Amino acid sequence: MAQTQKQWTVAERIGFDGLKLDEKAPVPAVGDKDVLVKFHAASLNYRDLIISKGLYPFAQRDGVVPASDGSGEVVEVGKKVHRFKKGDKVLTLFNQGHIAGSLDAYSVTTGVGGMIDGSLRQYGTYDEQGLVHQPGNLNHLEGATLPCAALTAWNALYGLESRALKPGEWVLTQGTGGVSIFGVQFAKAAGAKVIATTSSAEKGKKLKELGADHIINYREDANWGETAKKLTGGSGVQHVIEVGGPNTMKQSLNAIAIDGVIGIIGFLGGMKGERQPSFVDALSNICTVRGVLVGSRLQFEAMNKAIEANNIKPVVDQRVFKLEEAKDAYHYQWDQKHFGKVCISIE
Amino acid sequence: MAQTQKQWTVAERIGFDGLKLDEKAPVPAVGDKDVLVKFHAASLNYRDLIISKGLYPFAQRDGVVPASDGSGEVVEVGKKVHRFKKGDKVLTLFNQGHIAGSLDAYSVTTGVGGMIDGSLRQYGTYDEQGLVHQPGNLNHLEGATLPCAALTAWNALYGLESRALKPGEWVLTQGTGGVSIFGVQFAKAAGAKVIATTSSAEKGKKLKELGADHIINYREDANWGETAKKLTGGSGVQHVIEVGGPNTMKQSLNAIAIDGVIGIIGFLGGMKGERQPSFVDALSNICTVRGVLVGSRLQFEAMNKAIEANNIKPVVDQRVFKLEEAKDAYHYQWDQKHFGKVCISIE
Amino acid sequence: MAQTQKQWTVAERIGFDGLKLDEKAPVPAVGDKDVLVKFHAASLNYRDLIISKGLYPFAQRDGVVPASDGSGEVVEVGKKVHRFKKGDKVLTLFNQGHIAGSLDAYSVTTGVGGMIDGSLRQYGTYDEQGLVHQPGNLNHLEGATLPCAALTAWNALYGLESRALKPGEWVLTQGTGGVSIFGVQFAKAAGAKVIATTSSAEKGKKLKELGADHIINYREDANWGETAKKLTGGSGVQHVIEVGGPNTMKQSLNAIAIDGVIGIIGFLGGMKGERQPSFVDALSNICTVRGVLVGSRLQFEAMNKAIEANNIKPVVDQRVFKLEEAKDAYHYQWDQKHFGKVCISIE
Amino acid sequence: MAQTQKQWTVAERIGFDGLKLDEKAPVPAVGDKDVLVKFHAASLNYRDLIISKGLYPFAQRDGVVPASDGSGEVVEVGKKVHRFKKGDKVLTLFNQGHIAGSLDAYSVTTGVGGMIDGSLRQYGTYDEQGLVHQPGNLNHLEGATLPCAALTAWNALYGLESRALKPGEWVLTQGTGGVSIFGVQFAKAAGAKVIATTSSAEKGKKLKELGADHIINYREDANWGETAKKLTGGSGVQHVIEVGGPNTMKQSLNAIAIDGVIGIIGFLGGMKGERQPSFVDALSNICTVRGVLVGSRLQFEAMNKAIEANNIKPVVDQRVFKLEEAKDAYHYQWDQKHFGKVCISIE
Repeated sequence: MAQTQKQWTVAERIGFDGLKLDEKAPVPAVGDKDVLVKFHAASLNYRDLIISKGLYPFAQRDGVVPASDGSGEVVEVGKKVHRFKKGDKVLTLFNQGHIAGSLDAYSVTTGVGGMIDGSLRQYGTYDEQGLVHQPGNLNHLEGATLPCAALTAWNALYGLESRALKPGEWVLTQGTGGVSIFGVQFAKAAGAKVIATTSSAEKGKKLKELGADHIINYREDANWGETAKKLTGGSGVQHVIEVGGPNTMKQSLNAIAIDGVIGIIGFLGGMKGERQPSFVDALSNICTVRGVLVGSRLQFEAMNKAIEANNIKPVVDQRVFKLEEAKDAYHYQWDQKHFGKVCISIE
Repeated sequence: MAQTQKQWTVAERIGFDGLKLDEKAPVPAVGDKDVLVKFHAASLNYRDLIISKGLYPFAQRDGVVPASDGSGEVVEVGKKVHRFKKGDKVLTLFNQGHIAGSLDAYSVTTGVGGMIDGSLRQYGTYDEQGLVHQPGNLNHLEGATLPCAALTAWNALYGLESRALKPGEWVLTQGTGGVSIFGVQFAKAAGAKVIATTSSAEKGKKLKELGADHIINYREDANWGETAKKLTGGSGVQHVIEVGGPNTMKQSLNAIAIDGVIGIIGFLGGMKGERQPSFVDALSNICTVRGVLVGSRLQFEAMNKAIEANNIKPVVDQRVFKLEEAKDAYHYQWDQKHFGKVCISIE
Repeated sequence: MAQTQKQWTVAERIGFDGLKLDEKAPVPAVGDKDVLVKFHAASLNYRDLIISKGLYPFAQRDGVVPASDGSGEVVEVGKKVHRFKKGDKVLTLFNQGHIAGSLDAYSVTTGVGGMIDGSLRQYGTYDEQGLVHQPGNLNHLEGATLPCAALTAWNALYGLESRALKPGEWVLTQGTGGVSIFGVQFAKAAGAKVIATTSSAEKGKKLKELGADHIINYREDANWGETAKKLTGGSGVQHVIEVGGPNTMKQSLNAIAIDGVIGIIGFLGGMKGERQPSFVDALSNICTVRGVLVGSRLQFEAMNKAIEANNIKPVVDQRVFKLEEAKDAYHYQWDQKHFGKVCISIE
Repeated sequence: MAQTQKQWTVAERIGFDGLKLDEKAPVPAVGDKDVLVKFHAASLNYRDLIISKGLYPFAQRDGVVPASDGSGEVVEVGKKVHRFKKGDKVLTLFNQGHIAGSLDAYSVTTGVGGMIDGSLRQYGTYDEQGLVHQPGNLNHLEGATLPCAALTAWNALYGLESRALKPGEWVLTQGTGGVSIFGVQFAKAAGAKVIATTSSAEKGKKLKELGADHIINYREDANWGETAKKLTGGSGVQHVIEVGGPNTMKQSLNAIAIDGVIGIIGFLGGMKGERQPSFVDALSNICTVRGVLVGSRLQFEAMNKAIEANNIKPVVDQRVFKLEEAKDAYHYQWDQKHFGKVCISIE
C-alpha cells in the first residue's frame, strides 16, 4: 500500500490559482469503521468552483481537499465495517452525515470537498456510513457524476414524497447543466413527459436524444413559461427543476400546474440584481416552491437502483482531465465549454 | 315551504354600500341531485370584504349572493340525492367543484359567494357534492366558521401529506385572524407545540387559553422569527401559517426548520410595496413554501372528524349580527373590532 | 336520436344462459347533470362472469345491464354538465360514487354492471362524475379494457402512496390475466424491474415482449417465490400483484422484500380449500398486505395520463365479439381461450 | 472509571435459570465513534423472556447481555463522536443498524439483547449511531420503557406514512401490554379516538384514565370487533394495534374501516393452533395488514419529540426491580403480574 499520494487542496480561496497539488500527501489512516477508497474518478460541480473562489455560502474548511464527487474502489476496511468489503466500487456521499430524513445542524457541516476532504486525490478514507455502492452498469467516470448533480435532480423529483414524480406527469428542465440533464433522464425513465429549455439548436438536439419530448429555445421565446404550459394542454407542469434565478423563476411560475412543485436547486443565474418574483406568487399560482440541497444516503441508494434498472448512462463531457490537470478542468467548466459533466480521471 | 326569502347580493362592487338586501328573492328550485338548505348562520372572511370592494383576484360573478360560509339544515332533497336527508345539519364547501386532489381549471371557478350564490340568505340549493355534514359538537354559529378559515388552516397543516403535522412538531401562527386561531386549535389537538404572535397582551392571553405554548409580541420583538427559532431549541418550526405579507415572511424564514413548510394563505398585510424576500431564500433556508387556497371536500370531512373527536370549539366573536345587519358585520370586521369569527345569525 | 336500443340484462343469475338480449330497450333519459354515451366497445372481467353465475360477493341488482367496462362517445349532455361535451370519448368509472379517497358505504354499492347499468348496450347515461376522458392514444376497443383491470393494477402499484412504485423497484406479476398484464406494462413504463410468472413458454414470450425482465414458469419451478427473490439479488420484490389464492400467496411471501407490499386483487384461484398462509406471516416477513378493489376516479385520471404519456397499448385478445355475441364472449373468457382482454365491439 | 461491572448474560437458553450474573465483567473499551453509557434503568419485553427460553425467531448470539431497553448517562465519548457529549441522557436503539427507512439484511441482525449486548449491566458502549437522546420530561425508569414497546406502537401508527394517524381517526388497542398502553397514549396525544379492549374492569378503569374513549371487556363481549365498529358510527377503526393472534385477528377484521391498517406487532397469543383468518380477508375487507418490527432511529427521534411535547408519562409497573433481581423481574412479567412496563433500576 502506498504511503503517500497526489492530492489537491484549496490552499487559498482566491480563485483557481489557489488550488495546490501536493505530490507527497499522506494516505490517511483507516479507523475501525472507516473505508479506504482508491479514487479512480472525480467530477466537478459549480459549487466546487465557487468554493475555490470563496463565494460558497455554506460551511467550508481551510485547506480542504476539493470536490464532492468521487468514484473509487475499496482497498481496505476497518475491522468493524460491515457495509463494504475490499474490491467494492463506491461513491462518496455529498453530506457525510446526511443518512436519511432532513439535514440537521450537524449534517450541513459535513460536505465533502467543503468541510471534509474530497475526491481530488488518489486515496481517501470515509466512515462506512458516508459511501454508497456504485450502480453496476457504470464505470468510474460515469459513477463520479452522481454524488452532487444526479442526487440533486433526484431529490427535486422525489424528495417531497406526496408530490413525488409519477408516470404521465410533466417535468420542465432548464438548460444543459448537470442537474438538468439528469432531470431529463430520470423523468423519462419514470414515464414522465419532459419539456427542456436551451439556447442552442445543437444542445436541443442532444436533449431530444436524451429523451426530452419538447425543446424550447428560450432565446427565441421570451415567454417560454407560457409556451410550456400550452404544451401540457393548459394544465401546466407538475415539476420544475429551477436552476436559473430571477428571470427563469418568473417563467417557471407561468409554467407550473396547480399544486405543482418548483424545486430551487441552484446558485446559477445570480442571486442578486433585478427584482425577483416574490412568495406571494406561490399563493396566486397555488404552487409549492422547495429548496433542494443535494440529498440523503437513502435517496442516493434509491436513485442508484433506478439508474441500474433503467441502464441510465450519465453524460460525461467528451474531454476528460487527468488529476494533474484539475485546474484546467475548473477553467473548462467555468468557461462553459462542456456538455454533460466535467470529469477527472485519477490513476 | 316559503316561496320567497331575504337575500343579499353584491349588486355593485363599490364597497359595502354595494351590498343590497332583497326581501322577496325567490327560493331556488331543487334539482334531482340538489339539496335545499335553510341557512341558520353565516360567517365572514376577509375575502368576502374585498369581493364587495372589487379587489378579489379570483373569479366572481355580478350580483352574486355573498359569503362562502354557511351553516344550515336540509329541508328538501332531490330524488337522486344520497349523501343527505331532511334534517341533516350541513355546511357549504368553499369551492363547490373541489371534491379531492388538486383544484383544476373548473373548480377554481366554483367559489361560493364569488361565482356561486353564498350564504347571506335564508335558503340556498347546492349540489349534494358541495355540502358536508356539520360536526356533531357544534351549533350553527360555530359550524358557520369552518368552510373558509378552518379548512384553510387545516390544509396548511395537512395538505402536503409528506409534511403533514405530527405530534411533537412546532407550529408558528401569526396574529388572531380566523385562520391563525384555527391553526392554534388544530395544532394543539394534534399534539404539536405552538408559538403564536400577536401585538397585544390581552390577545396573547386568549391565545394562551386556546393552548398556545408561547406568545411573542411582535411589536416588542422585531426579530420574532429568530426568537421563535430559539424557543424550539434552535431547530426551528416545522410549520408556519403565513398570513401577513412581506414583513412577516422575512421573520417566517428566520423561524423555519430545515424542510419546514411555510403555508402562504393570505392577502392580508399587502401584496405590494416594499421588497419581499425572494424565492432564493427557500433554497438558502432549505425549506418549502406552499400556496394554500382553502381545501377540498375530502379535507373538509377529515377536519370535521378531528373537530368532533377533540370537541374543538371555534371562537365566535362576542357580537353576532342578524341577517339584516350584514353590512354592519362587514364594517365591524373591516375595522378589526373582532376576536374570532364574525358571524351572522339567520332566521 | 334513437329511442330504443339493443341491451343485455342479467335476467337470471343462473349462468351465462341467464343473460338476455332486449332489441327494443329504451334509451335512458338525460338528467341535468347526466351524460348520454353511445357505447362503441365493452370488455369483460372475471367479476362479470361470476355476477351472471350469482357468485359475486358484492352488491348487485336484479336485471342489471352487465359489464363495468365501457368506452363510448358523448352524444348528449345535461344542461348543468361541465366535465364533458358532445363528441368526447369517455370511459365508465367502475364504482360510480368513488371519486377519490377511500370507498365508503355508499360508493361500494355503485358498481357499474352490478348495481348500476353497464356497458353491454348501445346507449347509457351516467352522472358526469362517473365518467373519465379516454386516453388520446387509444381506440374504443383499447379504452374499454381500462375501467376494471387496468385501474386495479394501477391501484395495486400506486394506491398506498408511501409505498408507491418508484423507478428501480421490483414488481412480481402472476400469469396473463388482464390485471397482471397491465401490471407488467405500468411497471415497465415507470422504470421498474418486472418478474412475471406463467405456465407456458409461449405466454412467457409475449410477456417478454411487453417488457417483463424475467419470466418464471411456475409449473416447472414450484419454489418460484424464492427464485424471484434471488433474481432481485436477495432483497426481494417491493410489489406483488397477487391474483391467485392460497398457493400463490405462499410464494409471494417468499418473494417479498422487507416493507414490500402484496396487493391482493383477485377472486381467481379459489378462496377456499387448503390452508392459507396466515396474517402472522405478514409479521415474520415484515411486509404489508393490502386488499385492492379497483380504484377511484382520481386514480383513473392519473393512470390515463400515464397511459397517454407512455403510449401504453392495452392487449386486446385477437378475437373481438359483437354485441349480439356477448354470451360467446363470456364462454370464451370462462374457457380461458384468451390472451389479453376479451372485448366486445358495439355498433 | 470502574474497570469491572455487574452484568447478566443469557448463558444458556433454557429459561430464566439460564441467566447468569457476572460480578466482575469488564467495562467495554470505547472506540473512536463509540459512546460509553452508564445504565441507570432497563425494562423487559416479552421478546427478552422468550430469548432466554430459546423461542425467539430472529437472530441471537450465545452469551449475549440481555434486554434491548436501556436508559443511562453518557460517561465517555470517543474522539470522533459528534451526536453526544458527556452527561447526556440516552436510550438504546433496538436494532442498532436501523437508522431510517426499511430494515435490511444487516440491520435485522443488530438487535440489542439479541445479537448485541444489552442493558442488564452497569456499563455498555454503543456506536453513536445506535443511541438517541432521552425525552427531557422523563426519568431513567420512564425512559427505559421506550426502545421496544413504545417505538413499536409509534411505528404501527405512523410507519405507513400515507396512512399515518390523523386527528379524528379511530384506534383500537388490545389489552394492557406495553405496546397497547403506549398505543392509547400516543393516539390520544394525537387527537384520535381510542377503543381499548381488556378483560378486567379494573384495568379498564386505568385505560380510561390514560385517555381511552371506550372500553370493551372482551370476556363479556365475544363480538367485540363488531362492537368497536358500531362505536365508530359504523365506518370502523382506521388503526388496529394487533397483539394477540388468531382470535383477536378475526375481531380486528370485523372492526377495521375500509383502507384501515391493522398493525401486526406481536408474538403473544400464539402463532399456532386454530385456523387463522387468511389473507383473502384483507381483500374482502379492503384493508391493509402490516407487519411491524420495532422501528428506526428516525422514528424513535420523532416519537421522543411527541413524548416531550405532550409530556407523555410511560406507565411503569409499581414494582421496580434491582439489577441483581433481574430473574425475579422475568418471572414477574412471565406471570403477568404487571400493569405497565416492568423496569429494573441499575446502580
